[in-house]
Amino acid sequence: MYQAKAYSVTSASSPFAAATIMRRETTERDVQIEILYCGICHSDLHTARDEWSSVMPTTYPCVPGHEIVGRVTKVGSEVSQFKSGDLVGVGCMVDSDHVCPTCQDHQEQFCHSATFTYNSPDKHGTAPVTYGGYSESIVVDERFVLAVPANLDLAGVAPLLCAGITTYSPMRRWGDLNGKKVGVVGLGGLGHMGVKFARAFGAHVVVFTTSPGKKEDALRLGAHEVIVSTNPAEMQQHAGTFNFILDTIAADHDINAYINMLGLDGNITLVGAPDAPLQVSAFALLFGRKSLSGSLIGGIKETREMLDFCGRHNITSDVEIIPVQQINAAYERLVKSDVKYRFSIDMASLKSE
Amino acid sequence: MYQAKAYSVTSASSPFAAATIMRRETTERDVQIEILYCGICHSDLHTARDEWSSVMPTTYPCVPGHEIVGRVTKVGSEVSQFKSGDLVGVGCMVDSDHVCPTCQDHQEQFCHSATFTYNSPDKHGTAPVTYGGYSESIVVDERFVLAVPANLDLAGVAPLLCAGITTYSPMRRWGDLNGKKVGVVGLGGLGHMGVKFARAFGAHVVVFTTSPGKKEDALRLGAHEVIVSTNPAEMQQHAGTFNFILDTIAADHDINAYINMLGLDGNITLVGAPDAPLQVSAFALLFGRKSLSGSLIGGIKETREMLDFCGRHNITSDVEIIPVQQINAAYERLVKSDVKYRFSIDMASLKSE
Repeated sequence: MYQAKAYSVTSASSPFAAATIMRRETTERDVQIEILYCGICHSDLHTARDEWSSVMPTTYPCVPGHEIVGRVTKVGSEVSQFKSGDLVGVGCMVDSDHVCPTCQDHQEQFCHSATFTYNSPDKHGTAPVTYGGYSESIVVDERFVLAVPANLDLAGVAPLLCAGITTYSPMRRWGDLNGKKVGVVGLGGLGHMGVKFARAFGAHVVVFTTSPGKKEDALRLGAHEVIVSTNPAEMQQHAGTFNFILDTIAADHDINAYINMLGLDGNITLVGAPDAPLQVSAFALLFGRKSLSGSLIGGIKETREMLDFCGRHNITSDVEIIPVQQINAAYERLVKSDVKYRFSIDMASLKSE
Repeated sequence: MYQAKAYSVTSASSPFAAATIMRRETTERDVQIEILYCGICHSDLHTARDEWSSVMPTTYPCVPGHEIVGRVTKVGSEVSQFKSGDLVGVGCMVDSDHVCPTCQDHQEQFCHSATFTYNSPDKHGTAPVTYGGYSESIVVDERFVLAVPANLDLAGVAPLLCAGITTYSPMRRWGDLNGKKVGVVGLGGLGHMGVKFARAFGAHVVVFTTSPGKKEDALRLGAHEVIVSTNPAEMQQHAGTFNFILDTIAADHDINAYINMLGLDGNITLVGAPDAPLQVSAFALLFGRKSLSGSLIGGIKETREMLDFCGRHNITSDVEIIPVQQINAAYERLVKSDVKYRFSIDMASLKSE
């Protein structure tokens, strides 16, 4: 084991502070990574504050971060895909059982034995739970390490590892979006990636937002049209016309208003998870044979495919780069959706701690 | 125009009584049909009692019935598919615009100009609204008339025209159910057809019911297993194992309990429409990438395909045959789900009125 600098919280109400954590030595299949950037995902905040205690209680100390980009510093003897100096990424998972039907189908995110990047029982026994990317270094099984295209801005690549795959996966699964009318509900960390991908897939992209002030930015990001969802006339004008809608809203909202936007056989996929149950009208689904789905990140194979796609289409997240010392302030702004569109922590700032 | 005997209601609270209605003379494309049997669908009751007033208010007098089987008595000069004496069926629709993308795609049930079999504006002007199958005779555009396989029991064929296609269509659309684990929620008019089709498609069929007393009958109808949904242990044992669930319940129920029964990428399709919004857990959809859909009857092409399938597999509805004079009593029993599994009106009984 070796010591690594990190930023952690010690309880649901305590602020982030510098800490030292233990990382395991690289085993045969491990890759040791110097972390360069780590995105801040809303899940980090929920976990740090134990807001998902009913489904996934938090073990403290907690080091969040699953939008990791870095450089390989060491590899185990059996590692074949990576070597020192390679640019790599790590997303929401660091291990799975590799043998269940779900893993065989490349959907490791649904493996019942998946190890998530933080707050997940650590099979290696280095600590009670895994520690994430708010750290100078991490050691990960090479099967969960992803090559990063050389042409992309690294700070903007980090959020691809969660926000990117979360939005890429359901759109890809829907089918060929070329020429289709695609809605993106909410223009935040997830939504802005949804817009970029939908545009790259050739869709006619429409952003639904409650903030008229986001119109210009939505168009800059690639949207063809923007609907202010609080304007009933604008909504009515587009009713029944969408093939697919990506719903990125994690707060309570009127889902039927968006189901009504769908045309025949249209689908709306949730990638945010509001706490309160959604009030779904059965009639709204029956008339037009519509469907409401959920989607959760993506498998490793698809994440590699997504990163390749981003390299070819020059897609990264729009980020605001912050030093690790500003995490607490960034969380306060995140709660107010005051970020365009993702915080990316420059981990060089951790060296001074 | 000509006079035809029928059974109608004159207000939301009045009982059915014998009446005389006008039917149009056959135009070039029309088929005149002597009605032999007409099934009683729950939609008939909702419409007769104006229970859907907010979305589809009822115009009185109202003659329901869209599960019609009969014999051709006359055809128009341009009718090519049918001749006098043919056994035919008519379902929920009698016309559409034939030109919109939805009609071109053989999904006339979603055509914005679809004419439904009853309580729908009558384009021919014979009456303010169309009159359905609780009648001795009906005149229908040949494009909405369906050939009935000769080997099937006619009283049991009638419900195929609505209950049959309503359950056949979503299962067919899901894909190949052969070897898949399929649940059917509720064992009524729709549910018992769902069981028969799922079995014929080669699925492992499991019925969810709140009534332990229905167990034996469910197995007789083709189910491999029966789960009493009020028994948490039985439910837990099957959690996460279903590929597809057909939900036929029109009353308020806990949809998340069934979403939790689905495995990865599983789908639950609603064919019943509870009035109250369904309380859907977003987490339940995200973890396992599940989907909730609605489905509404089926197009004419698919209804023909369904009838052919029933002919080949000898599938009909289990019916209780009643004379037209017992409609009021049948409605009272329908409200209590006291029928195995569909009432089929023997229209010969109308001759004595």
